Amino acid sequence: MAAGSGFGKNFRVTTFGESHGKALGCVIDGCPAGLVLSEDDLIPYMSRRKPGQSEFTTARNEDDAPEIVSGIFEGKTTGTPIAIIIYNKDQRSKDYSDIADIYRPGHADYTFDKKFGIRDYRGGGRSSGRETAARVAAGAVAAKLLEHFNIKARAYTKSIGPVTINSYDANEINNLYMPDHEAYEKASDYIQSLMKKGDSAGGVIECVISGVPAGLGDPVFDKLDALLSHAVMSIGAVKGVEIGDGFNVSFTTGSQNNDAFIAGSDGNSIKASNHSGGILGGISDGSDIIFRCAIKPTPSISMPQKTVDKDGNQKEIVIKGRHDPVVVPRAVVVVEAMANIVVADAMLGHLGDKIDFMKEVFQNGSSKNSKESKDRS
Amino acid sequence: MAAGSGFGKNFRVTTFGESHGKALGCVIDGCPAGLVLSEDDLIPYMSRRKPGQSEFTTARNEDDAPEIVSGIFEGKTTGTPIAIIIYNKDQRSKDYSDIADIYRPGHADYTFDKKFGIRDYRGGGRSSGRETAARVAAGAVAAKLLEHFNIKARAYTKSIGPVTINSYDANEINNLYMPDHEAYEKASDYIQSLMKKGDSAGGVIECVISGVPAGLGDPVFDKLDALLSHAVMSIGAVKGVEIGDGFNVSFTTGSQNNDAFIAGSDGNSIKASNHSGGILGGISDGSDIIFRCAIKPTPSISMPQKTVDKDGNQKEIVIKGRHDPVVVPRAVVVVEAMANIVVADAMLGHLGDKIDFMKEVFQNGSSKNSKESKDRS
Amino acid sequence: MAAGSGFGKNFRVTTFGESHGKALGCVIDGCPAGLVLSEDDLIPYMSRRKPGQSEFTTARNEDDAPEIVSGIFEGKTTGTPIAIIIYNKDQRSKDYSDIADIYRPGHADYTFDKKFGIRDYRGGGRSSGRETAARVAAGAVAAKLLEHFNIKARAYTKSIGPVTINSYDANEINNLYMPDHEAYEKASDYIQSLMKKGDSAGGVIECVISGVPAGLGDPVFDKLDALLSHAVMSIGAVKGVEIGDGFNVSFTTGSQNNDAFIAGSDGNSIKASNHSGGILGGISDGSDIIFRCAIKPTPSISMPQKTVDKDGNQKEIVIKGRHDPVVVPRAVVVVEAMANIVVADAMLGHLGDKIDFMKEVFQNGSSKNSKESKDRS
Amino acid sequence: MAAGSGFGKNFRVTTFGESHGKALGCVIDGCPAGLVLSEDDLIPYMSRRKPGQSEFTTARNEDDAPEIVSGIFEGKTTGTPIAIIIYNKDQRSKDYSDIADIYRPGHADYTFDKKFGIRDYRGGGRSSGRETAARVAAGAVAAKLLEHFNIKARAYTKSIGPVTINSYDANEINNLYMPDHEAYEKASDYIQSLMKKGDSAGGVIECVISGVPAGLGDPVFDKLDALLSHAVMSIGAVKGVEIGDGFNVSFTTGSQNNDAFIAGSDGNSIKASNHSGGILGGISDGSDIIFRCAIKPTPSISMPQKTVDKDGNQKEIVIKGRHDPVVVPRAVVVVEAMANIVVADAMLGHLGDKIDFMKEVFQNGSSKNSKESKDRS
Repeated sequence: MAAGSGFGKNFRVTTFGESHGKALGCVIDGCPAGLVLSEDDLIPYMSRRKPGQSEFTTARNEDDAPEIVSGIFEGKTTGTPIAIIIYNKDQRSKDYSDIADIYRPGHADYTFDKKFGIRDYRGGGRSSGRETAARVAAGAVAAKLLEHFNIKARAYTKSIGPVTINSYDANEINNLYMPDHEAYEKASDYIQSLMKKGDSAGGVIECVISGVPAGLGDPVFDKLDALLSHAVMSIGAVKGVEIGDGFNVSFTTGSQNNDAFIAGSDGNSIKASNHSGGILGGISDGSDIIFRCAIKPTPSISMPQKTVDKDGNQKEIVIKGRHDPVVVPRAVVVVEAMANIVVADAMLGHLGDKIDFMKEVFQNGSSKNSKESKDRS
Repeated sequence: MAAGSGFGKNFRVTTFGESHGKALGCVIDGCPAGLVLSEDDLIPYMSRRKPGQSEFTTARNEDDAPEIVSGIFEGKTTGTPIAIIIYNKDQRSKDYSDIADIYRPGHADYTFDKKFGIRDYRGGGRSSGRETAARVAAGAVAAKLLEHFNIKARAYTKSIGPVTINSYDANEINNLYMPDHEAYEKASDYIQSLMKKGDSAGGVIECVISGVPAGLGDPVFDKLDALLSHAVMSIGAVKGVEIGDGFNVSFTTGSQNNDAFIAGSDGNSIKASNHSGGILGGISDGSDIIFRCAIKPTPSISMPQKTVDKDGNQKEIVIKGRHDPVVVPRAVVVVEAMANIVVADAMLGHLGDKIDFMKEVFQNGSSKNSKESKDRS
Repeated sequence: MAAGSGFGKNFRVTTFGESHGKALGCVIDGCPAGLVLSEDDLIPYMSRRKPGQSEFTTARNEDDAPEIVSGIFEGKTTGTPIAIIIYNKDQRSKDYSDIADIYRPGHADYTFDKKFGIRDYRGGGRSSGRETAARVAAGAVAAKLLEHFNIKARAYTKSIGPVTINSYDANEINNLYMPDHEAYEKASDYIQSLMKKGDSAGGVIECVISGVPAGLGDPVFDKLDALLSHAVMSIGAVKGVEIGDGFNVSFTTGSQNNDAFIAGSDGNSIKASNHSGGILGGISDGSDIIFRCAIKPTPSISMPQKTVDKDGNQKEIVIKGRHDPVVVPRAVVVVEAMANIVVADAMLGHLGDKIDFMKEVFQNGSSKNSKESKDRS
Repeated sequence: MAAGSGFGKNFRVTTFGESHGKALGCVIDGCPAGLVLSEDDLIPYMSRRKPGQSEFTTARNEDDAPEIVSGIFEGKTTGTPIAIIIYNKDQRSKDYSDIADIYRPGHADYTFDKKFGIRDYRGGGRSSGRETAARVAAGAVAAKLLEHFNIKARAYTKSIGPVTINSYDANEINNLYMPDHEAYEKASDYIQSLMKKGDSAGGVIECVISGVPAGLGDPVFDKLDALLSHAVMSIGAVKGVEIGDGFNVSFTTGSQNNDAFIAGSDGNSIKASNHSGGILGGISDGSDIIFRCAIKPTPSISMPQKTVDKDGNQKEIVIKGRHDPVVVPRAVVVVEAMANIVVADAMLGHLGDKIDFMKEVFQNGSSKNSKESKDRS
């Protein structure tokens, strides 16, 4: 499991970088050639993740300006690896020297030391939420690719602490990315009450992917929902993932949970309901893909906590500095990014599923290309 | 995503086979040499999964006798691929001819056709629960390997429908694999009441993995919990996975959810609680690993359901034959198998984490081997 | 490098099995659905590899009857893994007990023991040439797929010992697979003279792959020639691989070695020569792909040889039994198999190279499928 | 085969970057923690590859200063991905505008267009030899790791055109990296005579890897020699690879080619000869690993050549600018780099080969670590 910093088989993303190292970034290998792409396509996604957006996010001052250093020529992808680099600017490493030898509860300090025998303790190093900046950049590229096929992933805050949205209001824009104004106000109050105590909140993010054609995903280990789970659970604070009706299926019966098929007007079938969350047997069924994930409360709290130091001595720790009292809002775009990466990968994977597709490309595709060449001359 | 029938990087399992084809099985590539292994090690696991165990499981008559055809010599693994074959005996393919052209709700019939343009409809073909027999065989090999390191995965039924266990009673043995006698009886009644209506039940499986050393898993995409989620969500009927406190973390606060570290007597640290479920930052923390998954109600029910046929015509379907009214009990050992495979893979991956480990093997290890050679001569 | 028994990314072949175990075989994961396939397609390839064909091959009595146990339904591939099993019949394991503790020069006995600490010594176990039976079966499936695109790999004996063919005569059929009658007769004499001494011969195999479209392969590490080299060098006795003019390029100059491009009548370009062997920059250029590999003399010879036993004692060994005095003729079809696997994999990989190909499949492809459905109803 | 810019399973290198893009570089995923490493370790290797070293190399002015931006903390590797970036400085892109629409013979211009439908034509883009700078940086990291185990790869120019070295003189330092002074002088003359005509030369590079323990590599597809072939053939100009006696084995007999084993004084066995080139059955045998590769003459020559343009029109091309008249000297360190990467990967892979190795790490290794912790406190 060494060498586990890559994800995806066809649209493969490898990330690198620590919170307070020189830079972080990613290499995307397998993005098809011919996609119009520039840094401008990444910025809107990066902005949704970057620190300093509101009272609920850390004040760390980072532009998070991604630089594409390869794989693009004259504004289009060339099919070669797209490397994206984000230099760290506001590093302030000295802030972290006091946690060099002590293990913060709920963080990966202890486990990194056990695994590697050494860790970059500055700001959590590789285990920092900052690592997700590279994912968001890669996800933006995947999103741009999926746009061509009218596929769109849309994630949002479903709940924070005990406050859950009642409905989805696309016009409700707020700094918690919570699409229900009343819920947003309650959640704000809830977070502020915790902030006063130096405590933190968790929540649930929901993601809906629309426009996914039926037939994506693989029958056994690489089921589309299995890959989504892998992708989403790999985000630092996530402790649970569910598809469609998720854990509620345990309470229902087959007759309630099965989605009836309905003959559609265009020859394609639709489902009368979507308990499955758009995936049947690991393969997309043409309905919206819907999943949720649980985000734990930020482990960095300013209340005193019991812990040990590197040498096993009992200690008390009070974590200084300003931290996100809830990571849910900033994680929304990370969840969306991972969803886009998984679906882009599955789209590419589907190309090899039938010999008919190969014929489409090698016979029709080639002749079409030749014709185009001639037209241009 | 073609070529998605393999799982694991170091302990790699590739499965094959359809419900009513000639055989199904797996190839395990990367199992270390020197492990004592025979079919006898697989049987107890296979028995927990096989049909016909009780009134709650399909009456299909299968021995599920796994045959190891490679990778073993004089009772030990040789380091070469271990192929395990399970021939299908009670195939009765004619039973399924009536579903050749019609899509069963909740099944993968429709999505397989969309993906591949063809499907082996006999008993669900590759999407059948029967596919998990190969996983269980592979999981048994992983379990045998982990025994040497005192690692043990133990899965059980946490709930069926609305009935949840109150406590874990290791002495309670029943055909629902539900370790609480009172809950078992209630769950039995619940299932029987559904069976009378031709309906089916879902539930939750919990798995506890004890003895896992701290330091397994990878920091970013291949977090140990991400791999567990991938592994478990890839089991047919699973719709949700959660680690530790799982979805409940969304309601708690940082001060409640963080596990304090306590100085242990032997120099190792322990945690005062285990909300994390044994994984911090994607890496095992030395506590028990605990996760749960939600299993949907069996989609094969005998109540009439609306659906469409291959040509898009509206139809009604009544699924004949005897099916498991609840797959939870038989899925328990499958969940355990996937857990064992993930942990075995992570154990092997950990070997490359530090240059010190390499020195241990290449310097101490080699010299030790040489000495042994001399001793033997 | 544990878990190294698989090859290919899109058309992935995993093999298993030892020379004298119960069975050997392979699992092909990623073969597209819709390919007409049966055991009959494998037999002609298996026959070219099987023992007992002539005076120059071992007399081991094996049918080498491959059995496809999964992945086929009603005569067509379903897109799920194709498992092929070949049971060992004429095992005669006792023949090999005398080499249990002694290392045969030129064989992998010593290195297997060093690697794994244990080995199945019967007939070379996993390192036996018999392992290639599984490759040939997998290669036959790849060949069947490539037929649909008019791609054909054709390997033959280029030389045996000092005897090289002068030209390629497609009508010359002989048991050395040497397409030049005069060379065949000389080579026969050469081998027979070595057989009398209990010695063995080596040779060179050449392979020509025709019909490969331009554009297959990858620019950097997974160049098409790099993958071919990997594939071919992984065959037991191969000690060298060269593409196009191969090692001779070291003597030529740029002006001699560069292939001029010529405007073709149909808008496609052709090359005035083919020093490149059909690959430029790791990507197929539309010309025939040509490569050669060097096969070492069979290490099993009946002349006495110096060696050591497991405990490091000096010994002399005389290898009994009948062995191929030259493995070149039987390796011809193995080389062809590996070439077919590489090209099938590259064909599938090419599908993801351009966003235009994706559009071809998802827009034209889908609509076409829908139309077909309607036509059928 | 999309997504083919990575190499290695355990020590995994992914490269990115074009000749005249902003930057090129690599990400190394899987390098063990605890290795002392800085840019200073890379410089000596980069210097051997960089342009402008002599009259025989292009005058392009590049520092090739690699910057490590992640994976190092306080001078040591942390086990997280090591990203290395090399910014392009002397890009002079306008020099290449004249080859935007025309295909240079012997280059990958035509094949890139066929594959991707678009190409970065500036200096060959991704197919430029400049891509190897990233490999050399990664190889330097692998070399540093291998130093700890006394493993050393050493490549040198074996021949240029018709001039071959007679012996290896470690003290002979020259700009052709040709360790035989007399041969060096003849080769110099040969190249200069070609330069006058605007032509170019090829040659052969040999690499010797000493100190490799027996037991590395995998029995079937991932044989150590197969991986070396893959690695070396993936270097742009390489047209052939051979191990040990290579193509010469075709002329020898088994009795000549087999290496006898000799009882060594220390209980380990040695071979009386090394025709095998240090690899038997795909696994290292403890002798030096020796391989050679053939490098084609630089395709960029200033003599007029026939070619076609993008629209298929017949053209003549004269390639301007100064190019290496022979790439052999600069490729020497690239070959060495790839050898180091393969062996580092195989070293890590070997750790999982035996259950005894696992015990060594998890039992002895852990206890040792704990003890160390105590000592330190």
